[in-house]
Amino acid sequence: MPFINVKMAKGRTVEQKQKFVEAITKASAEILNVKEEWVTVVFDEYERESWASGGTLHSIKFGEGYGKIGAE
Amino acid sequence: MPFINVKMAKGRTVEQKQKFVEAITKASAEILNVKEEWVTVVFDEYERESWASGGTLHSIKFGEGYGKIGAE
Amino acid sequence: MPFINVKMAKGRTVEQKQKFVEAITKASAEILNVKEEWVTVVFDEYERESWASGGTLHSIKFGEGYGKIGAE
Amino acid sequence: MPFINVKMAKGRTVEQKQKFVEAITKASAEILNVKEEWVTVVFDEYERESWASGGTLHSIKFGEGYGKIGAE
Amino acid sequence: MPFINVKMAKGRTVEQKQKFVEAITKASAEILNVKEEWVTVVFDEYERESWASGGTLHSIKFGEGYGKIGAE
Amino acid sequence: MPFINVKMAKGRTVEQKQKFVEAITKASAEILNVKEEWVTVVFDEYERESWASGGTLHSIKFGEGYGKIGAE
Repeated sequence: MPFINVKMAKGRTVEQKQKFVEAITKASAEILNVKEEWVTVVFDEYERESWASGGTLHSIKFGEGYGKIGAE
Repeated sequence: MPFINVKMAKGRTVEQKQKFVEAITKASAEILNVKEEWVTVVFDEYERESWASGGTLHSIKFGEGYGKIGAE
Repeated sequence: MPFINVKMAKGRTVEQKQKFVEAITKASAEILNVKEEWVTVVFDEYERESWASGGTLHSIKFGEGYGKIGAE
Repeated sequence: MPFINVKMAKGRTVEQKQKFVEAITKASAEILNVKEEWVTVVFDEYERESWASGGTLHSIKFGEGYGKIGAE
Repeated sequence: MPFINVKMAKGRTVEQKQKFVEAITKASAEILNVKEEWVTVVFDEYERESWASGGTLHSIKFGEGYGKIGAE
Repeated sequence: MPFINVKMAKGRTVEQKQKFVEAITKASAEILNVKEEWVTVVFDEYERESWASGGTLHSIKFGEGYGKIGAE
């Protein structure tokens, strides 16, 4: 505890994910008052055709591919 | 808000998913009283060997492959 | 299958939830090609202090209470 | 996007949750390369009798109440 | 790891939940080849008005209250 | 109902998953007082680079590959 599930678009690097895990784990320890070893972070990464907002799949809204700003 | 997570078997086309997103987003706006742009729909799609009902994995219950009626 | 999890703010009536369930179940049958009895819909409903967007809890952003348009 | 679900024990204050939201949203923008307004954070908070580790419910392992260090 | 989330109707006793946790944790260790202390089990328990199957909320389908066989 | 979601590392065999489904379904029927056919079990299986504990991705902590004891 805590168990933190991050749902986002595919396309980040392992380095980005590691840096993000470090930031979330540090914030959990400092703000939520837990030990770092108790913190679990799990990433669910989605193709654009599996994520929709405002009634449109992101593969239709933004086209194929990953990670362009504005394509999240 | 709302965030709608649809867990289902693999095998639908992008067209089916887009039509389903449109239907859910429209229903959210009309019935739940929100703006369409606030609605997020995310699909988690499963191989039959990762989904079980009544004590049996669907890959064993229905065999390999997708989308036959009765194989959901 | 499918299992549909709807995460939204607290405050809808049972009637709204029933109407939404009917719409989603009908759309699942017609578009995803499943039988209505296979469709499960589960609502997770949140206090504003448990949902944040853009870096701010909704209880701070919109104040206490539920359901005002724009407060989603 | 991203949609971040934080599952943890009940007992944090609104202030702690707001500070944690700020930290996660800032880290998302800086490291995952998204706009802060796209980031959604949702808290699921659990009674000790609904969370178990190592085969024991935390209400049995740690007793009733919240938030003691070591009780997470 | 593993993290096991059990979504079910409200109404079980703490004793039932503890017995179920023991059974799942033991099965995880023996079959999934992990240590018992790594296994987390988290219960999400729902009112009948928040769970629907076949297009109808369970509070409408089964009436108020919990736990009657056939009301799951 | 119940709907049981198992999040774990990639690497188990179909046989392990089927045995685990049988154990969980049996325990659900006996302890939670439901019929076996109502029980749904869904597996989410993760690459090590998508699961972190104690601030480190498991691909960094344990290296590539699956299923070594201690690598969970």
